[in-house]
Amino acid sequence: MEKIISLSSDFGVDNKGIAVMEAVALGICPDVKIFNMSHGIPFFGISQGARVLEAVTYLPVGCHVMVVDPGVGTERRGIVIETGRGDKLIGPDNGILLPATRFLGGFKRAFQLKNDKYYRNPVSPVFHGRDVFTPAAAHICNGVKLEEFGPELKQEELAQAPYVEAKVEGNKITAQLIDINNFGSPFLNIMQTVMHELFKPGDVIKASLNGKQFDLPYKRTYGEVKVGEVLLVDDDFGRVELAVNQGFFIDKFNAKVGDTIMLEKQE
Amino acid sequence: MEKIISLSSDFGVDNKGIAVMEAVALGICPDVKIFNMSHGIPFFGISQGARVLEAVTYLPVGCHVMVVDPGVGTERRGIVIETGRGDKLIGPDNGILLPATRFLGGFKRAFQLKNDKYYRNPVSPVFHGRDVFTPAAAHICNGVKLEEFGPELKQEELAQAPYVEAKVEGNKITAQLIDINNFGSPFLNIMQTVMHELFKPGDVIKASLNGKQFDLPYKRTYGEVKVGEVLLVDDDFGRVELAVNQGFFIDKFNAKVGDTIMLEKQE
Amino acid sequence: MEKIISLSSDFGVDNKGIAVMEAVALGICPDVKIFNMSHGIPFFGISQGARVLEAVTYLPVGCHVMVVDPGVGTERRGIVIETGRGDKLIGPDNGILLPATRFLGGFKRAFQLKNDKYYRNPVSPVFHGRDVFTPAAAHICNGVKLEEFGPELKQEELAQAPYVEAKVEGNKITAQLIDINNFGSPFLNIMQTVMHELFKPGDVIKASLNGKQFDLPYKRTYGEVKVGEVLLVDDDFGRVELAVNQGFFIDKFNAKVGDTIMLEKQE
Repeated sequence: MEKIISLSSDFGVDNKGIAVMEAVALGICPDVKIFNMSHGIPFFGISQGARVLEAVTYLPVGCHVMVVDPGVGTERRGIVIETGRGDKLIGPDNGILLPATRFLGGFKRAFQLKNDKYYRNPVSPVFHGRDVFTPAAAHICNGVKLEEFGPELKQEELAQAPYVEAKVEGNKITAQLIDINNFGSPFLNIMQTVMHELFKPGDVIKASLNGKQFDLPYKRTYGEVKVGEVLLVDDDFGRVELAVNQGFFIDKFNAKVGDTIMLEKQE
Repeated sequence: MEKIISLSSDFGVDNKGIAVMEAVALGICPDVKIFNMSHGIPFFGISQGARVLEAVTYLPVGCHVMVVDPGVGTERRGIVIETGRGDKLIGPDNGILLPATRFLGGFKRAFQLKNDKYYRNPVSPVFHGRDVFTPAAAHICNGVKLEEFGPELKQEELAQAPYVEAKVEGNKITAQLIDINNFGSPFLNIMQTVMHELFKPGDVIKASLNGKQFDLPYKRTYGEVKVGEVLLVDDDFGRVELAVNQGFFIDKFNAKVGDTIMLEKQE
Repeated sequence: MEKIISLSSDFGVDNKGIAVMEAVALGICPDVKIFNMSHGIPFFGISQGARVLEAVTYLPVGCHVMVVDPGVGTERRGIVIETGRGDKLIGPDNGILLPATRFLGGFKRAFQLKNDKYYRNPVSPVFHGRDVFTPAAAHICNGVKLEEFGPELKQEELAQAPYVEAKVEGNKITAQLIDINNFGSPFLNIMQTVMHELFKPGDVIKASLNGKQFDLPYKRTYGEVKVGEVLLVDDDFGRVELAVNQGFFIDKFNAKVGDTIMLEKQE
């Protein structure tokens, strides 16, 4: 594993805490390379944060810190999850780290971050990103073994993921809106590999969302439908995306994260 | 040329795609230095993006990637333009790269990015920033010749620039609003060198914008007019700026990118 | 002192001027490490900017540039302040640099940035961040002595700080709202060390703000009150924070930076 740390949070991109986390990491591991994945995750947006973390697939194997942490200061645990690819996913035990493991070779093992030898002390009760998670990442880059941080945890002991994979039954997929980008386009919990078993670009899918039934063309790119028309495309990070060509899908359907959509093959 | 890449886009500064483009660049050229110029260009804002790219004048000679790309996935070409100064401007062939060449020693030559040997494969139909443009920049930093990427293109074969330079006739300049900053101040397509041939700080200019005629003091700094009053100043990037001292110009004049303004010398 | 520069401004995080300041710093001092503290300080927000700068306590000793500069282009001075810890605080003489000195070992000495040998020339009248402050920081990293920049200034010659420390009288603290975070929570000009002399977590404080009197529980973390209830907590940067658990404090109290709050011990 290279000495790589990625940082993500719901702090807002203008937050001084980001530079402070970078400084903490560099103070512990001076030759680490830091990537800021996103600091604009919606406030307490566990589903959206989980989706952001899936994109570390496109980064080198490394330590990936995720700070969306409504439970900070309570009894919720801090954890590190090792993936099949070798990444270390670090953050609160609130489910946010789990979906990314499906893109990273699966869940391998997890440990609680309990050993205060690897904390930045004193630990602020409101900023574990700086005082617990980032130091853990930097110490791992320095070669500290996961066993040093605390007791091993089984996957079933961890908090539940904000979403599982979409349910496929015959000609139908029941999916969930898991994140929405800056252009108002929602992403679904459908992996492209699963999508391609049932549908192919060019198909027109029967869709149902928030009480509306509509034809949903499955296309390769936005430009293949007229401006203002809906479509489904493979997104750029391994899942599928609802969109309106040069428009905002979520306004058109009053859609939000967590909504359910049904996709069915036309007869 | 140093190993320098700058990245700009309309993704929004909180977008995970930025870190992913950085990782792609570093994966191909590990010792490249990356600058993020702006990722807050308005969605599909070709004029505003062109203005952002002009500011690479203040960066070292390098590879400058611009991803404002409404035509991604259609037949529009990906291109690299070499400037007189030695920069390589990389992005979609939609005109956005051309205005910067006037600040960078002029247009020297251009090539299509056609050779998929230099793509990140498979190429997403919706994210050429990651899969085509950033890899091209990193390969150029590694010494790949522009001729390797695809056929040479003449300037007249390229899509038109979103703006040309302002028109000077006698005592009058007809200019265009090409970008607006976070403080609501518009920038004009007038180079300071051109401005200084006709006007000098201290002049009061006859101005006409959106049906309103008004006196426009040409000043050195905002503080030389009263709070709330309009003025024209040399901006900080080689052009001129309309502003209201401690106010928002665009609200006062209902102005937007693309509007035309006339500036005329008082008799 | 390591070769460290931090940059902060009210430019907006999407502003191309940030990368340009980075390029200027690296052009002068190629091995400097740059941190971006915050570029989302409210436009002309001197109090909020001063609060951001206090957080460089968590960065290594270095040169910290702060560009919130309503007086740019007027006669206001550019200055560098050396702190007891060894930091160099660089920016306009408008008070914004002073509060941080209380966290950094105190005010040691100050100099005017007058020597144009250390400017980037020509100096834009509207962008001293690029042409005066960042070059000064980079030259200091290169070993230039503070005396080289211009005449020494006594603290009493400098513009006043936007806030002083809260006033403690008997059982009462009169404090000021000095900054507000993205979650609508205000920070007070009370150091935790001062707070802890009068109050302890678990106390319920009598508070008065904008004509409203209310009980204010002083807690360790947000989760110790019910969702929607107000509380006071030690913040994560050495001061105290007003908050609503999973809500926005400022909306509830119509509060803004500069407001006064009274905290009094219950009998």
